[in-house]
Amino acid sequence: MQHIGKASISFDNTPYIQEYASIVGKKEGEGPLGKYFDEINEDSLFGGDNWEDAESRLIESTISKLLSKANMSSTDIDYILSGDLLGQLIASSFGLVNFNIPLFGLYGACSTFGEAVSLGSVLVASGAANRVIASASSHFASAEKTFRFPLGYGNQRKFSATWTTTGCGSVIISKDTGKVKITGITTGKIVDYGLKDKENMGACMAPAAADTIYNNLCDFGRNPSDYDKIFTGDLGYIGQTILIDLLREKGIDISDVHSDCGIEIFDINLQDTHAGGSGCGCSASTFCSYIMKQFEAGKFKRILLVPTGALLSPTSSNEGNSVPGIAHGVVFEAV
Amino acid sequence: MQHIGKASISFDNTPYIQEYASIVGKKEGEGPLGKYFDEINEDSLFGGDNWEDAESRLIESTISKLLSKANMSSTDIDYILSGDLLGQLIASSFGLVNFNIPLFGLYGACSTFGEAVSLGSVLVASGAANRVIASASSHFASAEKTFRFPLGYGNQRKFSATWTTTGCGSVIISKDTGKVKITGITTGKIVDYGLKDKENMGACMAPAAADTIYNNLCDFGRNPSDYDKIFTGDLGYIGQTILIDLLREKGIDISDVHSDCGIEIFDINLQDTHAGGSGCGCSASTFCSYIMKQFEAGKFKRILLVPTGALLSPTSSNEGNSVPGIAHGVVFEAV
Repeated sequence: MQHIGKASISFDNTPYIQEYASIVGKKEGEGPLGKYFDEINEDSLFGGDNWEDAESRLIESTISKLLSKANMSSTDIDYILSGDLLGQLIASSFGLVNFNIPLFGLYGACSTFGEAVSLGSVLVASGAANRVIASASSHFASAEKTFRFPLGYGNQRKFSATWTTTGCGSVIISKDTGKVKITGITTGKIVDYGLKDKENMGACMAPAAADTIYNNLCDFGRNPSDYDKIFTGDLGYIGQTILIDLLREKGIDISDVHSDCGIEIFDINLQDTHAGGSGCGCSASTFCSYIMKQFEAGKFKRILLVPTGALLSPTSSNEGNSVPGIAHGVVFEAV
Repeated sequence: MQHIGKASISFDNTPYIQEYASIVGKKEGEGPLGKYFDEINEDSLFGGDNWEDAESRLIESTISKLLSKANMSSTDIDYILSGDLLGQLIASSFGLVNFNIPLFGLYGACSTFGEAVSLGSVLVASGAANRVIASASSHFASAEKTFRFPLGYGNQRKFSATWTTTGCGSVIISKDTGKVKITGITTGKIVDYGLKDKENMGACMAPAAADTIYNNLCDFGRNPSDYDKIFTGDLGYIGQTILIDLLREKGIDISDVHSDCGIEIFDINLQDTHAGGSGCGCSASTFCSYIMKQFEAGKFKRILLVPTGALLSPTSSNEGNSVPGIAHGVVFEAV
């Protein structure tokens, strides 16, 4: 393992995605990626008492599904790296308590899945762990209640707003052979262009995505065409346009290979999701379904996944602060 | 580097604490550890506009102090690992944005400094990074506003409550020779005894501390007397009693070597801090002052630091949930 360039690590002993699982809500199941998810739960409360409890149950179900698909139990896993969008990560805390596995709690807003896979890969590639779980989740209703308005208010949404994905995606990262290799990571720094519109988070996050993609290409000495796809997390349509423009200013054209999990997961014309999907669970569940299945079908040889996060809180917005962005890149390659 | 026992990693190429810095508020400066801190700021707003801004400025000042003590600039640091207690880590986000360093945002409640040093040590020991900063902070007023009541309400506090430390502690972890070695880590899992009193967090966290200390002793094959001190983060007086009792039930007596940063940082008789100090910044600033100076004075050969976290949010408490705990252990040894 070595540090290369400004912000990247290249793995010699590549860790592998040994298994993956995703569970999503009804709306995500009705979207274009519906057939790829492991489970679609029609009950938006997931059997719980409130939205936070719902998200905890979503996490618990997804990790259970993951262990069951891998034919493993909790004792086979050395660490969990996990996060969500709620204050003090309560969805993760209450969703993970029963697994009894040492936990590293992470917060990178919607970039958390990239952060979890990055640090999980370092733990495994270094020999510090044999097998870890990396996971991230979000829930539409718990996120709306936290960041915007409780659903009961029936407020209207700007067309630039995104729709928080109800979903959880989890992977087992292992030093044993697996389904996909993790060959490198590029870690994001906070990028703040001073934008303040929390209903246009795609614009707030695009500069951070551009920075991480630029660093990744420089650090690994690659062109965009060296990737079958560069997937950002949840920029949506507005953020995508800005990202492509920002990289063009640096002489890099990713338009042929760029996709965004937030654009893929919903059909904006049929599903009224405005700028697209968002949330930690958006890139996590898209990776742990559609993207992994494309690898298994031999359609991808190498991709760059760049989950994107908007670093705001209800308090920071109310106090008139900007919405800085962060984005964590991970390079996946076919075995 | 190797995974040992249930929850620990032992470092062959030990990473070092190359430099450390701590900045605290007026009350902490007046406490028993006052002479050990790098700076004591008499202005509880740290020149900021509100309590969140104050904590961000505290973080920015501490990292600047750290770099200046080490005679380094941002470009000498590969990664920052940092966290705080506020929802969505806004104190860290706005406090770190100007350093332009790739960031891993962490949330482990008041255990965050242990988590940051743990993951930072793995990054350095594995060769994935040459030099990282691990940091954690808290601020009395931003924490009271988040978890209890805004100060303006003038509410009364139970005697079992702790006093959130206004402080930030930051270290540079490096593969070069430094002041103290990091020889191992023991990572905590979530432990929930079902306690619900957020004004008695020492009791909520003590079972997690007991679990991590027990695992550390088993994994490394040590007795309590193999450590000069076992420092927990912020159990306070009530939590300390419970911790010692819980370990006695397992046949382990740590009473001779146990200290708690929350007990050390304030004089409860003179400073009206009830059960003791708490907050991410409590163990971080105590380590980055008193504990490091004891090592430098040759008084410590080996210690176990176990920052302790209470995994609650205002929402989880209002919904009647318990307060699970987590604790992350780090073994430091004299060079």
